[in-house]
Amino acid sequence: MAQKFVYFFGNGHAEGRADMKNLLGGKGANLAEMTSIGLPVPPGFTISTEVCTEFYKNDSNYPPTLADEVAVHLAQVEALMERKFGDPANPLLVSVRSGARASMPGMMDTVLNLGLNDITVQGIINQSGDERFAYDAYRRFVQMYSDVVMGMDKHLLEHLLEQKKDARGVHLDTDLSAGDWKDLVAAFKAQIKEELGVAFPEDPMDQLWGAIGAVFGSWMNQRAITYRRLNNIPAEWGTAVNVQSMVYGNMGDDCATGVAFTRDPSTGENYFYGEYLVNAQGEDVVAGIRTPQPINRAKATTLPPMEEVMPECYRQLDSIRTILETHYKDMQDIEFTIEKGKLFMLQTRNGKRTAPAAIKIAVDMVAEGLIDQRTAVKRVAPEQLDQLLHPSLDPKAVKNIIAKGLPASPGAVSGTVVFTADEAESEAKTGRKVILVRIETSPEDIHGMHAAQGILTARGGMTSHAAVVARGMGKCCVAGCGDIKVDYANQCFTTRGGVVVKKGDMITLDGTLGEVMLGAVPTVSAELTGDFGTLMAWVDGIRRLKVRTNADTPHDAKVARQFGAEGIGLCRTEHMFFDAERIAAVREMILADDIEGRELALAKILPMQKSDFIGLFREMKGLPVTIRLLDPPLHEFLPQEEKDIVELCKTMKVPVSALKHKIETLHEFNPMLGHRGCRLGITFPEIYNMQVTAIMEAACELVKNEGFSIVPEIMIPLIATVKELSVLKQNAVAICDVTIARYGVKVEYLIGTMIELPRAALTADEIAVEAEFFSFGTNDLTQTTFGLSRDDAGKFLPFYVDNNILPEDPFVSLDQNGVGKLVKMACELGRATRPNIKLGICGEHGGDPSSVIFCHKVGLDYVSCSPFRVPIARLAAAHAVLDEK
Amino acid sequence: MAQKFVYFFGNGHAEGRADMKNLLGGKGANLAEMTSIGLPVPPGFTISTEVCTEFYKNDSNYPPTLADEVAVHLAQVEALMERKFGDPANPLLVSVRSGARASMPGMMDTVLNLGLNDITVQGIINQSGDERFAYDAYRRFVQMYSDVVMGMDKHLLEHLLEQKKDARGVHLDTDLSAGDWKDLVAAFKAQIKEELGVAFPEDPMDQLWGAIGAVFGSWMNQRAITYRRLNNIPAEWGTAVNVQSMVYGNMGDDCATGVAFTRDPSTGENYFYGEYLVNAQGEDVVAGIRTPQPINRAKATTLPPMEEVMPECYRQLDSIRTILETHYKDMQDIEFTIEKGKLFMLQTRNGKRTAPAAIKIAVDMVAEGLIDQRTAVKRVAPEQLDQLLHPSLDPKAVKNIIAKGLPASPGAVSGTVVFTADEAESEAKTGRKVILVRIETSPEDIHGMHAAQGILTARGGMTSHAAVVARGMGKCCVAGCGDIKVDYANQCFTTRGGVVVKKGDMITLDGTLGEVMLGAVPTVSAELTGDFGTLMAWVDGIRRLKVRTNADTPHDAKVARQFGAEGIGLCRTEHMFFDAERIAAVREMILADDIEGRELALAKILPMQKSDFIGLFREMKGLPVTIRLLDPPLHEFLPQEEKDIVELCKTMKVPVSALKHKIETLHEFNPMLGHRGCRLGITFPEIYNMQVTAIMEAACELVKNEGFSIVPEIMIPLIATVKELSVLKQNAVAICDVTIARYGVKVEYLIGTMIELPRAALTADEIAVEAEFFSFGTNDLTQTTFGLSRDDAGKFLPFYVDNNILPEDPFVSLDQNGVGKLVKMACELGRATRPNIKLGICGEHGGDPSSVIFCHKVGLDYVSCSPFRVPIARLAAAHAVLDEK
Repeated sequence: MAQKFVYFFGNGHAEGRADMKNLLGGKGANLAEMTSIGLPVPPGFTISTEVCTEFYKNDSNYPPTLADEVAVHLAQVEALMERKFGDPANPLLVSVRSGARASMPGMMDTVLNLGLNDITVQGIINQSGDERFAYDAYRRFVQMYSDVVMGMDKHLLEHLLEQKKDARGVHLDTDLSAGDWKDLVAAFKAQIKEELGVAFPEDPMDQLWGAIGAVFGSWMNQRAITYRRLNNIPAEWGTAVNVQSMVYGNMGDDCATGVAFTRDPSTGENYFYGEYLVNAQGEDVVAGIRTPQPINRAKATTLPPMEEVMPECYRQLDSIRTILETHYKDMQDIEFTIEKGKLFMLQTRNGKRTAPAAIKIAVDMVAEGLIDQRTAVKRVAPEQLDQLLHPSLDPKAVKNIIAKGLPASPGAVSGTVVFTADEAESEAKTGRKVILVRIETSPEDIHGMHAAQGILTARGGMTSHAAVVARGMGKCCVAGCGDIKVDYANQCFTTRGGVVVKKGDMITLDGTLGEVMLGAVPTVSAELTGDFGTLMAWVDGIRRLKVRTNADTPHDAKVARQFGAEGIGLCRTEHMFFDAERIAAVREMILADDIEGRELALAKILPMQKSDFIGLFREMKGLPVTIRLLDPPLHEFLPQEEKDIVELCKTMKVPVSALKHKIETLHEFNPMLGHRGCRLGITFPEIYNMQVTAIMEAACELVKNEGFSIVPEIMIPLIATVKELSVLKQNAVAICDVTIARYGVKVEYLIGTMIELPRAALTADEIAVEAEFFSFGTNDLTQTTFGLSRDDAGKFLPFYVDNNILPEDPFVSLDQNGVGKLVKMACELGRATRPNIKLGICGEHGGDPSSVIFCHKVGLDYVSCSPFRVPIARLAAAHAVLDEK
Repeated sequence: MAQKFVYFFGNGHAEGRADMKNLLGGKGANLAEMTSIGLPVPPGFTISTEVCTEFYKNDSNYPPTLADEVAVHLAQVEALMERKFGDPANPLLVSVRSGARASMPGMMDTVLNLGLNDITVQGIINQSGDERFAYDAYRRFVQMYSDVVMGMDKHLLEHLLEQKKDARGVHLDTDLSAGDWKDLVAAFKAQIKEELGVAFPEDPMDQLWGAIGAVFGSWMNQRAITYRRLNNIPAEWGTAVNVQSMVYGNMGDDCATGVAFTRDPSTGENYFYGEYLVNAQGEDVVAGIRTPQPINRAKATTLPPMEEVMPECYRQLDSIRTILETHYKDMQDIEFTIEKGKLFMLQTRNGKRTAPAAIKIAVDMVAEGLIDQRTAVKRVAPEQLDQLLHPSLDPKAVKNIIAKGLPASPGAVSGTVVFTADEAESEAKTGRKVILVRIETSPEDIHGMHAAQGILTARGGMTSHAAVVARGMGKCCVAGCGDIKVDYANQCFTTRGGVVVKKGDMITLDGTLGEVMLGAVPTVSAELTGDFGTLMAWVDGIRRLKVRTNADTPHDAKVARQFGAEGIGLCRTEHMFFDAERIAAVREMILADDIEGRELALAKILPMQKSDFIGLFREMKGLPVTIRLLDPPLHEFLPQEEKDIVELCKTMKVPVSALKHKIETLHEFNPMLGHRGCRLGITFPEIYNMQVTAIMEAACELVKNEGFSIVPEIMIPLIATVKELSVLKQNAVAICDVTIARYGVKVEYLIGTMIELPRAALTADEIAVEAEFFSFGTNDLTQTTFGLSRDDAGKFLPFYVDNNILPEDPFVSLDQNGVGKLVKMACELGRATRPNIKLGICGEHGGDPSSVIFCHKVGLDYVSCSPFRVPIARLAAAHAVLDEK
């Protein structure tokens, strides 16, 4: 038996099903499904995706049996419709549409009214009794077919149409008569012949095969190829072709066309939401020339709704709504047409929705018994939650966008512009809301970033200092805004468009879109509704991965706990060093010439660090807390600007030359690859000793005085060799044990390491001999694996992503092929040495859904991310479990 | 039968053999071997290394059978010597020595004269008839035993000895009488008792077991543990103990002691080379108090040689020389003692030798039929060759060393000091020899480095710019000389010791030792003797790895060819950009605002690059040449100093602000991880297009006009993803094919990539789809794998190596565990995709012997290194083959 290539649907029977999307495309599969469940679908047939594959395999030839199969199925349609394709008296007209598994820009989309020619048009006049309708349909067909099938420049035909209207002295298409359209059909054909050198096909079968060929041909056009490459869609998938008998919403006032959602796609409310137009074709609803009317009075309306204008059809449509939801068990996006009082369904598919709608629909449908909790959880995309967790601009507000940058940290805020961290702090103290604008930020700006509502930087990428810190704080940030030029001297910035914004001017940032607006744009605040809580409880019941947070302060920790964090995966102790009262002691330590001097300065920092840790431990109430010892190079703590150097020397009472010499000595060509992380701990053991003392004293005091149960996790950064870790672990263990003995309490602790250098991942089996846990620092691991500085990548990384040299920014979504290979290897090697080793991730990727799913797959114990991304990570972790089925 | 732990040797029979080093240690195995082949060795026995292992396994207890075994073997010795251990009348005295597989500092070494006490000393007086000799031996024994066995502070006893000499009013030990020594023995014992609280053991058996215990105990002392850790010697190896009857070279003028080499260890000449002292103990020869006399008249001497003083003994020793060389088939380092006219052999081992000696001995021994060519090749250590290939300081010259830095590039040169590259060039043009002294060098200094005899820098490590470029040029360089402070303003540098060296002062550099000397120190130049050529021919017959060179100029290429390079593995095209007449066009290109401007500037560079390549191809006469396209970030081509910026702006007729803005725009935080390598090629395709055009035009012209056969290898640097390579390869192929068609010739070419980022190694299977060859850039691969900037590592890397956190500088010797794992993985992945892919290495490691052996093992096709290291790599490659057996 020959392979079957064509699948019929019509009159309650279909050869296809909804789950045959791979073979029939999304559109064809759903047309078949709707037909099978008894919905009124104009009959037709689908030529399967396998034909497309065969076509390209065989040098653009169709399978030999195809023509016969199409003929047989066409005859079935003719029989049902009681019309004949190409028949002069009672012709059948069809639409031809492409239909891949996923909709694909660049593909040929639709040809309507196919089958018309100078003879069959008379048949349509007979059928409809409306000459103007028939010629209007005919000219639309010629325009559409010549454009998408023949490659005619459509503006040439539109130009003829404009000429005709001018000649007739009218403005609207609707003012043209049947005769005008008839003239235009002839004129169009002449122009096509002249332009393309071939005549417009008159034979309906030629037209049909032309359209089918155009669909298959468009599968390999450049735009489609590019789209597939960008979205990793294999060329072998192919497209299907749907041939369906035409129905008309524009044959009179008993005709209509419309689109609807089975629930409100913005809010998720459970009512029938849709629009329709009387006497119109589908394209008119979206064209925006006429204002579509609502289908019902679910929301207030002044326009007459369909439920009143065509009550019978509405009743039928409303019952179809229920049938579809019950059948598909999801909110549907449908298209329908009413021809002379008879309702036809042209399309159904799962409807797109906002984040709040997604959650409400999912939770409601569980309550309605339509779906189970696991399905509900799958219905919400983790990334969508981001919309919910931050305030956003009022969608109705007018926006005066003056610049665009990177959407570095979501949310929307307004404030007056300041240019220094100190100003931000002092202004904020007076209760003013400010936006801190910097060319780029450094750790010294932290207090200003804290004080500001939002941060705008001219330089730096999605993982620049400003972006990382802002996301950590859950603070709105637009980074790398190359559209602005910051002039500190004159306290202003100028946009590419020439707008000058001075200190004190009000601006608004949209960190979700990366937009900068002049003036204050109203915002609406986030609301974590009851549905959100319900859904997240289901999420937590499903996921295996724990979700921790990256938090440096009790405040961050508290926010993260509210978002459901189950511990701290990364506390960066250096951020505590920048506090105004501490930085002096830190600098004293750096400037000291000998170990005694350094220890003297460190002794001043010890009680402060200890109180930090007490605060964190208290906030986390016994949940695990991973504390990373000092990581950045020491020069980050010294000023770089002449003015600041002079000032500091005054305060510290040291000669300017001494400080300058120190700064020069500490200068590094590649600080990212320099004297930092555990290399500081090795060369200046007193620094880590102080930090470990502070951690253990904090833990011991809480255990002793407040009965806490704490297992501090001490994390040593930038390990490249097991030797580094064994030396530092030995020091740390000695201090821990002495401290514990001093307090006379029992406190357990873990000592582990970041895996953030390729060498650490490659030798993880050796490192696991010493490390009790690994935490993958995928920011630095990405930098070193790619040889890519995230601070400098702005010059070429956007070009790389735009040109698909990289599928996406590897600092945002983990590069699973390269960096991920190292992570996987390290997990396997680490577990081989120490089967119960604790594995986590604390890079920014810990809050990226696809990266979280990867982390689940390689078997990590937890991910850690910024507080505002904790719910996203929780949801992604649940998806990871559900994806396993 | 109980396990055998003790091995006897004496009187022509031995239970051990030379190949039992693992069991008996090096010393014990050779004593046994010499005994077996009939040489006169004082009898004794060896306690095997297994006892050491058992000792530590069983809580510091000896195997129960050991005491009996020792007693049995001691009795055998007594029988042969016709003396009895501890016998008052005719006592046997023994030496006790440790003997591991390899000699190990920190181990207990030797106790002589063991068995003496107040009673047996009388027996020795009887035997020798020399009371003074007997008491001298006794006091030496007490001193030595109390020091190494009992842990007595030896200075306390030396102090008593000084007091005695003062009391007697004499200066030399030899002026003390028998009575004096006898007094001292008593005084020593009293002091030992007082100091340690235990009496000096009188019972000879107690002495013996004390000494044996001290040897085993010292295996686990801190110094020995550290040494083993540093040298990867397992603790399980253990040490052996040798107990041997004493013989005396100091019993009168018919006694002597000496050391000898069977050939001259400095030159390799085949004559008997040695020194001896009449009436002396072994330690006297090396102590330097008396001047040892030569053993013969092979070299002119004024001192009476042994061959005249003791002709019979000399004759016997000379015949032993022949026996040993014939037996061991290698040059031997021997120790002997003559007691009352009777010769005894105390040690033989393979002798250490200089590089010229190693070569001469190896080649001579092949001619003499002693060894085969393969053995001869193994006898020369690759690293030794470095001594041969550069001039070196006259060993007899006086050196006034004023500073020490890193031995960055070997050789020795003198010249007057200059502080800028321009001065170096202009001075050199007048025929003056100059040393270029810089704080650090940059690519702009290349012309000055070329002009100078040698380079001295205050900053930077073994792989700093200065070091790398100097090694590439085969030019002497001392880098990172922290002992000097360079003052450009006053045109001088000051050493830590306060010496001020001004411009024009003469200094000498020893790049092999890292020394800086005041004044001109005479040098001796390298000589590649006939033996060298002979050996290298054998080397080439053995090795499988090809050896190419890193060369950027025809001159470098020529030198490398003389050293045996078989192609160019890395031509860095950017070095060609720094030439004075080109840099202007390069800068014009960088400053251009658009592609047209850049192309205009590139068009000026094209003919110059083309002529470079023609020069290289001509020099290499059809051998493969790999050309790397532009690699460094563009800012390296712009000046950084204010003065230079202003000057350049004048020349280029651009406003200072424009140039400064460009410099600011190009600034990078981590240039190593920045906009360089193929990232330039992607964002500015016109640069690579020009370079590929230049390469192919050069090749086509030579093929067309001179009938060359050339297959240029175009290498694209810093690939992280296959996508980068496929884009750039497509561009390059288009240009190559157009160029070839334009010349109407047939030229093949290869397009490949550096593997220098971890991600490239991890995804080598993907990259090999496009790459026709891989060249491992292990410098950058080491930087990224370790997260270690070689420019900044100077602040902690030396500390790491000193403290054994890293076994060695990973930029010098490939880190096989980490970086090597990536190399191996990439080879396997690459070959899986493209079985015939060409694999090479062009990092500095290509000239490091252990790294070359690693490259052989992972199956690379070639290594590429700086010209002066080509012979080293060739020899290492041959060793790699020989090691496989």
